[in-house]
Amino acid sequence: MTLRILATGGTFDKHYDEIAGKLTFAHSHLPDVITRARLTLPTELEIVAMLDSLEMQDSDRSNVLAACQRATETAIVIVHGTDTMRETAHVIGNANLAKTIVLTGAMIPYEIANSDAFFNLGLACGVAQTLPHGVYIAMNGQIFNWDNVKKNRSAGVFVNE
Amino acid sequence: MTLRILATGGTFDKHYDEIAGKLTFAHSHLPDVITRARLTLPTELEIVAMLDSLEMQDSDRSNVLAACQRATETAIVIVHGTDTMRETAHVIGNANLAKTIVLTGAMIPYEIANSDAFFNLGLACGVAQTLPHGVYIAMNGQIFNWDNVKKNRSAGVFVNE
Amino acid sequence: MTLRILATGGTFDKHYDEIAGKLTFAHSHLPDVITRARLTLPTELEIVAMLDSLEMQDSDRSNVLAACQRATETAIVIVHGTDTMRETAHVIGNANLAKTIVLTGAMIPYEIANSDAFFNLGLACGVAQTLPHGVYIAMNGQIFNWDNVKKNRSAGVFVNE
Amino acid sequence: MTLRILATGGTFDKHYDEIAGKLTFAHSHLPDVITRARLTLPTELEIVAMLDSLEMQDSDRSNVLAACQRATETAIVIVHGTDTMRETAHVIGNANLAKTIVLTGAMIPYEIANSDAFFNLGLACGVAQTLPHGVYIAMNGQIFNWDNVKKNRSAGVFVNE
Repeated sequence: MTLRILATGGTFDKHYDEIAGKLTFAHSHLPDVITRARLTLPTELEIVAMLDSLEMQDSDRSNVLAACQRATETAIVIVHGTDTMRETAHVIGNANLAKTIVLTGAMIPYEIANSDAFFNLGLACGVAQTLPHGVYIAMNGQIFNWDNVKKNRSAGVFVNE
Repeated sequence: MTLRILATGGTFDKHYDEIAGKLTFAHSHLPDVITRARLTLPTELEIVAMLDSLEMQDSDRSNVLAACQRATETAIVIVHGTDTMRETAHVIGNANLAKTIVLTGAMIPYEIANSDAFFNLGLACGVAQTLPHGVYIAMNGQIFNWDNVKKNRSAGVFVNE
Repeated sequence: MTLRILATGGTFDKHYDEIAGKLTFAHSHLPDVITRARLTLPTELEIVAMLDSLEMQDSDRSNVLAACQRATETAIVIVHGTDTMRETAHVIGNANLAKTIVLTGAMIPYEIANSDAFFNLGLACGVAQTLPHGVYIAMNGQIFNWDNVKKNRSAGVFVNE
Repeated sequence: MTLRILATGGTFDKHYDEIAGKLTFAHSHLPDVITRARLTLPTELEIVAMLDSLEMQDSDRSNVLAACQRATETAIVIVHGTDTMRETAHVIGNANLAKTIVLTGAMIPYEIANSDAFFNLGLACGVAQTLPHGVYIAMNGQIFNWDNVKKNRSAGVFVNE
């Protein structure tokens, strides 16, 4: 089995730009993250976008869907911003692909203290190998079906709809 | 679903004792780790031992097995030293419990830079919810059956036997 | 000798608010930072403000000056945003206090990977005990007099004027 | 002014070897540490040894003294293990060099959570530029003369003799 990881940006991949003095995007952290995870599982990393998910347009979601469609792997993890993770999951879920696709992300950027990013990626990489074909969101230690999940923004957690 | 997490020590939970100047065990990191993971999944943490797995005796493995047997949960993650993870997996595997039990650990302690611990725990917490009943080792992004896995000590990775 | 540390906010003390998804201020990191530094030097910490230095008003700088004036200690470190550190140093420098006052800060928040904050605080705490009375900026491993320093914003470093 | 930094190993520079499963020495962390500190102060780094200070022999201390003697810089920071920092300070102090030499170290290795290493290096780099010629130990936020300092090993702090 080979796992494909699609990076789209999101809180997970935000970077502090010390000259501008703000959080933005630079290179994805995912190459370093994958090395740190000591994966022996064959993995393909693809940078589809590097966007705050609140800025994602329909065309961006189409690009993510297209990356899923053209992937030769049947296990895919998508690193995505949490604010519109559900929307992207709907676009992919409605396409009914014969693949296991798991979206995950982070409440705190990977490079900031107390980040949940590394755990969430482990969670998603695990269940992408074991769940039946379908589209899922893996956050907060839980696995949600794409058509029964929403983010509770005031609590900062995902829950069943 | 409730997940039970059993701590047994291992590299994952080693702590630097600044007075003694060496790595040893103090309190488990797991309460902090679980908080950081922002789990909404109900979780029970149980400290079974706090041992380097090279020091584990048969009686310690019996204690781990007993903790699995008496657990009311059917999804269990065991945080364990990597050096004898396979041996403990064999003890539990041979007991044929109607539960999904996943052993994981770390090559670098949670509190040391570049640790894989947090990823591995995410991986294990995910697949403990999705795999059929059985005993597994989840390391290096992969899932191994208890009766077909060994640690390649010179490379520091788990492989099929 | 007792050292007084004045917190005013700045990049050093920024905190990622995971619900709002942005860098802001919460509690100062300085109590934790001081514990981590294992100071045996008697230290008084005073939170004067918790502000981005670009938002600092004249009244805020007057508050910082007043805190310096009423301090019974003659060694003072001020943790301050870098963008207007020079302006606050001028306000205090012109007051000609019989104290050694050292401003420092950070290019990357204490809680973000690769932060310079902890080093800079050590630098400032050292020279606040050894320099003659006066007002100084300690950044980039260097010590600058308050009336001969500016920030090179495109390079993100302090230089002589 | 140029600052010379001499690395000798010590707790500051210990590294976790994930294959051997223990703390040892590999490359010094100091090149990375110096980059992270964003020093504009010209700095020369010299690796004199990479030793636990409990293993230091007279010949090792002679090497450190020789490095101080041949240095063209008059400001020198020595990163050293804490257990025999006092002994090395005595060897250098008795040589009466016309230089400011500051020994520092760490109670927790740089790469382990909660390390004091980065603060201590900042402290030492500051006072090496401001103290009169002599030999000093800078630890715990304090500056000690070489002939009036000892480590309280049960408390893990330096105090006047």
